Amino acid sequence: MIPVDWKSFFEPAHATPGLPGSGHATLFSNTRVVRIDWGDCDPAGIIFYPRYFEIFDASTSALFERALGLTKIELLKTYDFSGFPLVRTRARFLQPTRYGDDVTVDSKITFGHASFEIEHRLSLKGVTCVECEEKRVWVVREPDGRLKSRRVPEEVLRKFRVI
Amino acid sequence: MIPVDWKSFFEPAHATPGLPGSGHATLFSNTRVVRIDWGDCDPAGIIFYPRYFEIFDASTSALFERALGLTKIELLKTYDFSGFPLVRTRARFLQPTRYGDDVTVDSKITFGHASFEIEHRLSLKGVTCVECEEKRVWVVREPDGRLKSRRVPEEVLRKFRVI
Amino acid sequence: MIPVDWKSFFEPAHATPGLPGSGHATLFSNTRVVRIDWGDCDPAGIIFYPRYFEIFDASTSALFERALGLTKIELLKTYDFSGFPLVRTRARFLQPTRYGDDVTVDSKITFGHASFEIEHRLSLKGVTCVECEEKRVWVVREPDGRLKSRRVPEEVLRKFRVI
Amino acid sequence: MIPVDWKSFFEPAHATPGLPGSGHATLFSNTRVVRIDWGDCDPAGIIFYPRYFEIFDASTSALFERALGLTKIELLKTYDFSGFPLVRTRARFLQPTRYGDDVTVDSKITFGHASFEIEHRLSLKGVTCVECEEKRVWVVREPDGRLKSRRVPEEVLRKFRVI
Repeated sequence: MIPVDWKSFFEPAHATPGLPGSGHATLFSNTRVVRIDWGDCDPAGIIFYPRYFEIFDASTSALFERALGLTKIELLKTYDFSGFPLVRTRARFLQPTRYGDDVTVDSKITFGHASFEIEHRLSLKGVTCVECEEKRVWVVREPDGRLKSRRVPEEVLRKFRVI
Repeated sequence: MIPVDWKSFFEPAHATPGLPGSGHATLFSNTRVVRIDWGDCDPAGIIFYPRYFEIFDASTSALFERALGLTKIELLKTYDFSGFPLVRTRARFLQPTRYGDDVTVDSKITFGHASFEIEHRLSLKGVTCVECEEKRVWVVREPDGRLKSRRVPEEVLRKFRVI
Repeated sequence: MIPVDWKSFFEPAHATPGLPGSGHATLFSNTRVVRIDWGDCDPAGIIFYPRYFEIFDASTSALFERALGLTKIELLKTYDFSGFPLVRTRARFLQPTRYGDDVTVDSKITFGHASFEIEHRLSLKGVTCVECEEKRVWVVREPDGRLKSRRVPEEVLRKFRVI
Repeated sequence: MIPVDWKSFFEPAHATPGLPGSGHATLFSNTRVVRIDWGDCDPAGIIFYPRYFEIFDASTSALFERALGLTKIELLKTYDFSGFPLVRTRARFLQPTRYGDDVTVDSKITFGHASFEIEHRLSLKGVTCVECEEKRVWVVREPDGRLKSRRVPEEVLRKFRVI
């Protein structure tokens, strides 16, 4: 049924675990709490799952903000890149969440060369509700207007390095 | 980095390929065209990826609507179930799409016992932009209010069967 | 061009200013801070305005949560009503906001009999960006499944009363 | 309760009814059908009202697309402007809609100098569910990056003129 090679979907062939040059798999992480709102939920009374991906996208930005001390708009101005679009993602939905729930999102990053992987764990009162993994690329806009992936700047990686 | 057994993430251990009782892998499919709107796109000028999952969710409903001749609200009233929440999904983003693009979404279904898998292919002018696969369960609301998975009704499966 | 009587659009003919029985126009208010995210913004780089209404809807729930000490889901369970759908709203957009902005939303409520009006002011660093006013009704679900407006319970009003 | 002069909120003081130079109030209109999806609805089973504004925003783009024969992205490239952000909007919600509903949106435009007003009527089977009015400005991006309103190009107005 699936024409693409899904088996290798998340094998990070070109990714060095941890930060390049760090010599070991250093993970940088961030945690934030998000309120699930009425408008995030569907007629079954539970969250409409695309909202989770909105939460995860913001969680990735929050991770960079914590490491670099810059919001995404400042990041785009400072490093002259055009974002970190998603290449692939996958998620497992273990427990539904509902409006009024204050969920915790733990996010961890691993850098490759021109890409990075983020793992998000969304939980409610300690119970995991969603696990998500995403691979993103660091892109710049070429003079012709097209987006092209480029190596994550060393300056950015340095900020993520923690002893 | 990944604590769960992602390798078996999409091995449909309990799914019989095709429709139960059909004796062979019969796929039911549907195609629809979706306009990407200004409000679906982000400051990079391309679609904000959670919108794809909104499109895929509606495409799954459209597939059922085509097979059963019932909209989702009619489906919920007719079969007295409470929806088909997502258990897991994964997607690959190959080409970005932009506002004004009329994309084509091809969706195919394979039934298991209390679950089914859908594969969506979103393309623009014949070029694949996104591939997505989702696994969903057929759920009913128990007297205590909790959602519980249940076998997909034979009557529903029959409608999907095509000679 | 406008067939309806827009002039009387927001004249609260049947609303008593302030809380019934309070003898004077007591306003209950709440303030919260909301981060504008990348995914809330459009290709012009500013917030896509329907997102403001998502923020205002959640701000209305937050106002009730602060007054009653109940999240909306608890509120629906406790008072056996079905929500407070919007009857009408209007908004003025004075200054755009962008991703990374932490905006402040001040919300004030005035009760009528079976309805209430909320005024939201969304500001950034003290500068008003959006003014919004909404009128909502308190609804219950009738045995036939239809939603019908009903007087806001005295118990709810009492919680909003502050000396 | 309302500090701003809401009475004059929608009096188009600087707007000439109809198209400038047309000598009379010529209205250009467009109609489209939109499916309300499961994910557009909230736990009350009816549409979450910010989704209406997403529909209206796309309806405004559709109106321009019909008049000019250009999608919004082509429009932005052709006329070198940066969009038509909303200055103010108001809406009345008369009847709820639900997932599976195919609603009709009728949109009419009236041009001012650097602005225009759109009236949307959303109906289901001939019954009006929502009435919305919006005022937008035609903006260009200044060299310093700021958005500034500018007179709607004569070439655009000409395309809207119908005998």
